[in-house]
Amino acid sequence: MKHDHKDNIQRLKTIEGHIRGIQRMLENDQYCIDVIRQIQAVQAALNKISARILDGHLNTCLLGAIEGDDPQERTRVLTEITEVFETSNKI
Amino acid sequence: MKHDHKDNIQRLKTIEGHIRGIQRMLENDQYCIDVIRQIQAVQAALNKISARILDGHLNTCLLGAIEGDDPQERTRVLTEITEVFETSNKI
Amino acid sequence: MKHDHKDNIQRLKTIEGHIRGIQRMLENDQYCIDVIRQIQAVQAALNKISARILDGHLNTCLLGAIEGDDPQERTRVLTEITEVFETSNKI
Amino acid sequence: MKHDHKDNIQRLKTIEGHIRGIQRMLENDQYCIDVIRQIQAVQAALNKISARILDGHLNTCLLGAIEGDDPQERTRVLTEITEVFETSNKI
Repeated sequence: MKHDHKDNIQRLKTIEGHIRGIQRMLENDQYCIDVIRQIQAVQAALNKISARILDGHLNTCLLGAIEGDDPQERTRVLTEITEVFETSNKI
Repeated sequence: MKHDHKDNIQRLKTIEGHIRGIQRMLENDQYCIDVIRQIQAVQAALNKISARILDGHLNTCLLGAIEGDDPQERTRVLTEITEVFETSNKI
Repeated sequence: MKHDHKDNIQRLKTIEGHIRGIQRMLENDQYCIDVIRQIQAVQAALNKISARILDGHLNTCLLGAIEGDDPQERTRVLTEITEVFETSNKI
Repeated sequence: MKHDHKDNIQRLKTIEGHIRGIQRMLENDQYCIDVIRQIQAVQAALNKISARILDGHLNTCLLGAIEGDDPQERTRVLTEITEVFETSNKI
């Protein structure tokens, strides 16, 4: 791997287990508000992973694109960052 | 079940598969921004489930807790709460 | 006023001043990231006001629309709605 | 100005007027849910401005820092972007 994603993959496995737990909560008809809180905990954990991946991206792919000599590629990479930032505001 | 959560459980199973897919993206070192976009798609799907559960909650648990005598007005007010909650997730 | 919104109006006046401050930051070409952080501070303050208004709404308008007979249970359930709404803004 | 912020400043002036309008809504005790919706519209408009400012930042300050020769400055600028991204997820 270009990036070391071991830790991020482990975090996603944990989230996978968390989501199976939420399925069981619904199967057992546990209290709705508690279920929503667990979903929100998963979302917070996903936010953390996104930020970590972005951080890695900026320090490798972005640096590579900017130091490279393809202006179109550079523009593309910069625009993508604004796009994920804008999407993150809507979620 | 007091609530019929079959559909929500199915949605969570889909999300579980989605998260396994994201793990594979990281294992295969796929493009970071594409990974972040997939995480954002999962978060949007989780927002939808939260809103659905809250909606069920207001129309059962909340109604059980509070009694009313104008059903139409009650429904309207409860729906609005769900709507603003849902909107708040997108901002 | 049915609701006492004095405090919310005062908070909005403060936000109005904050936004004028951000305009000045842009006029003086201050550092972009600092400007974005100030905008995020305004958004957090607006989230707080939304949560306060929803809280008032549930405890007056919603109660007016739905009648109940267990005041403690009613309060608890209504408070939870506000809490999840508020949490949703932070995710 | 290094950046042309005329359009962003104009957008902030519009938001300022919007917030004064929300104050009047509260003074006139208008319906809470309508007020919350207006606050959410302001937040969406602020998100748009943030994304526009970030876009400008990436194409000027960030490019400058990366093409410059101060590794510490480069790291600082990249870390800041992750930070505003992470904060945006929580708002």
